[in-house]
Amino acid sequence: MSQRPYNFAAGPAVLPEDVLRQVAAEMLDWHGSGMSVMEMSHRGKEFISIADTAQRDLRELLRVPDNFRTLFMQGGGLGENAFVPLNLSRGGKVDVVLTGSWSRKSAGEARRYADVHVAADAADSGRIPEHWDLRPDAAYVHVCTNETIDGLEFHELPVVPNDVPLVIDCSSHVLSRPIDWSRVGLAFAGAQKNLGPAGLTLVFVRDDLLGHALDICPAAFNYETVAKADSMFNTPPTFAIYVAGLVFQWLKRFEYQGLKGLAAIEQRNIDKAKLLYGAIDASSLYVNRVHPSCRSRMNVPFFLKDERLNDGFLAEAKAAGLLQLKGHKSVGGMRASIYNAMSMEGVQALVAFLKDFEARHG
Amino acid sequence: MSQRPYNFAAGPAVLPEDVLRQVAAEMLDWHGSGMSVMEMSHRGKEFISIADTAQRDLRELLRVPDNFRTLFMQGGGLGENAFVPLNLSRGGKVDVVLTGSWSRKSAGEARRYADVHVAADAADSGRIPEHWDLRPDAAYVHVCTNETIDGLEFHELPVVPNDVPLVIDCSSHVLSRPIDWSRVGLAFAGAQKNLGPAGLTLVFVRDDLLGHALDICPAAFNYETVAKADSMFNTPPTFAIYVAGLVFQWLKRFEYQGLKGLAAIEQRNIDKAKLLYGAIDASSLYVNRVHPSCRSRMNVPFFLKDERLNDGFLAEAKAAGLLQLKGHKSVGGMRASIYNAMSMEGVQALVAFLKDFEARHG
Repeated sequence: MSQRPYNFAAGPAVLPEDVLRQVAAEMLDWHGSGMSVMEMSHRGKEFISIADTAQRDLRELLRVPDNFRTLFMQGGGLGENAFVPLNLSRGGKVDVVLTGSWSRKSAGEARRYADVHVAADAADSGRIPEHWDLRPDAAYVHVCTNETIDGLEFHELPVVPNDVPLVIDCSSHVLSRPIDWSRVGLAFAGAQKNLGPAGLTLVFVRDDLLGHALDICPAAFNYETVAKADSMFNTPPTFAIYVAGLVFQWLKRFEYQGLKGLAAIEQRNIDKAKLLYGAIDASSLYVNRVHPSCRSRMNVPFFLKDERLNDGFLAEAKAAGLLQLKGHKSVGGMRASIYNAMSMEGVQALVAFLKDFEARHG
Repeated sequence: MSQRPYNFAAGPAVLPEDVLRQVAAEMLDWHGSGMSVMEMSHRGKEFISIADTAQRDLRELLRVPDNFRTLFMQGGGLGENAFVPLNLSRGGKVDVVLTGSWSRKSAGEARRYADVHVAADAADSGRIPEHWDLRPDAAYVHVCTNETIDGLEFHELPVVPNDVPLVIDCSSHVLSRPIDWSRVGLAFAGAQKNLGPAGLTLVFVRDDLLGHALDICPAAFNYETVAKADSMFNTPPTFAIYVAGLVFQWLKRFEYQGLKGLAAIEQRNIDKAKLLYGAIDASSLYVNRVHPSCRSRMNVPFFLKDERLNDGFLAEAKAAGLLQLKGHKSVGGMRASIYNAMSMEGVQALVAFLKDFEARHG
């Protein structure tokens, strides 16, 4: 068993220890090439084999249909907040559903390029709104399917009427569960939660949405240009792609309760979340304010009912080997991010600490 | 001495072996933190110390004046080709001097946002034009100070009249020599040649040029926004910053012929280039077509006078442990990139191979 502390950071976040060990072992000489992956030309056969394998494994894990392209890009979620409307809005209408910090940021950025309409707003309700006021002639509808800061997750993707494409920002829960591609036009995800190092962004885009970028879209971020060059129009973030590829391989061989691959990791994520929310709900010191129907399996924000205990909680947690539990500065409190690479033992250790701390201070 | 082959890739490119060894050693636990650098929150004290040290070392090496900001960004050179006019052009006039592939790409991208004028064009002359037709009311003048593909380098920065800011794309020779900041308004550089892994871009921008971005500039690439957030507006490419920081430390302790730091690496670069160009010029099989006054110290394109020998040359070079010598597909022939991390022994080995191959096939 690992002697490393448990790292609950919201991203950049914990990675599988097996992956880190392999990265270290291959650092000076990848597969007899005499080069570190960092030193390889992105157009050489060695790196192309790395990128091709990563893309194939990713598509296999998520069962990406043939009519979707997979792009390896740069710029993160905040970059995509601009690139999506630059590529898809055609300068027309964009509908956004607000469920937290990230969807609000997306809406704000899209206003530079399109007529943005808030179709629904969760405000501080802690739940995803039921009624959406959608426009039939919108270029797309944007949702953030897992709000990293607020801890809301879509457990089912919406069906958007009138064939309006759905754009999902799935940065903080990508590869934690399947995606129903029949309901999606475009999905994007920064890598630094479930995939690998910061600096890599994945985009999955349906073929028919390519080719409509505004003239002011930078060439390096024009999805059609990137797709035609197989993500090699710009020098891609090669090392991050390599690490993500190792994470994909780790996921493919992951086993849990007789399951394998994405089904196995999803089941473990369900079980981890159930354990942690159960402990919070059973306590009289901790509270999570998200409605149970849309609680995130990945990001669990919680508050101590006596906030004067916050600093002591964090100090004791760190001493117990439980790192980076402080909540986002915009909401305060605590947050435990329990991404794919967080083990069941890590969540059990957190739950044991929650109970112990409450017994002593509650 | 290293047993690794010599890697002449144009980028991503060879890194100092000491840096790779340190990255491998720290992969699972950076300085007792219990985390890999890849797993650290960019807002945690550990990563902030890494980023602060990297920035301080970089500024010290290049003697960056206080009125310049250093930004760690994403998007590479092709991204900056859009971000520079989005931030600096004010939708007005941009003058560009064409010296090769990269300056041509920059001009093309700037046309999306500004009135672009070609002030001079090297065409196929192999030398930097002397007469520049500059407009006094241009927002800035753009030059690429080292053309990675064509092998032309500015050995002195131009003095632009009328206080028009000079923008330099110094991607492929940054940190190989000093920069005369008195002549520069903005400098940018992709990391994957002299600095570290692909996916990190450095921008040095003079304070007075901030605050004029077009409304259509994505927030994540608005220099003022990035500067105000100390490059943490978006999640930065944390691991690439860490590796670049180790490269900066390697440069600071680098010694050569009684010199240290940037002066030492510059002198070794001068000596490496002299050795390689000397061997090419002395041969009757190889030719470099760039005028000696503006030959690059970093990228040495050369051609075999009998091109039927190309495939054999590359195969024999690889067998001799000399990797990635194939020229860019747009120009053909060969190219030896001899960045900071390429040792004198590597260039000596290449020169010995050139002579041996010529003796057998010339």
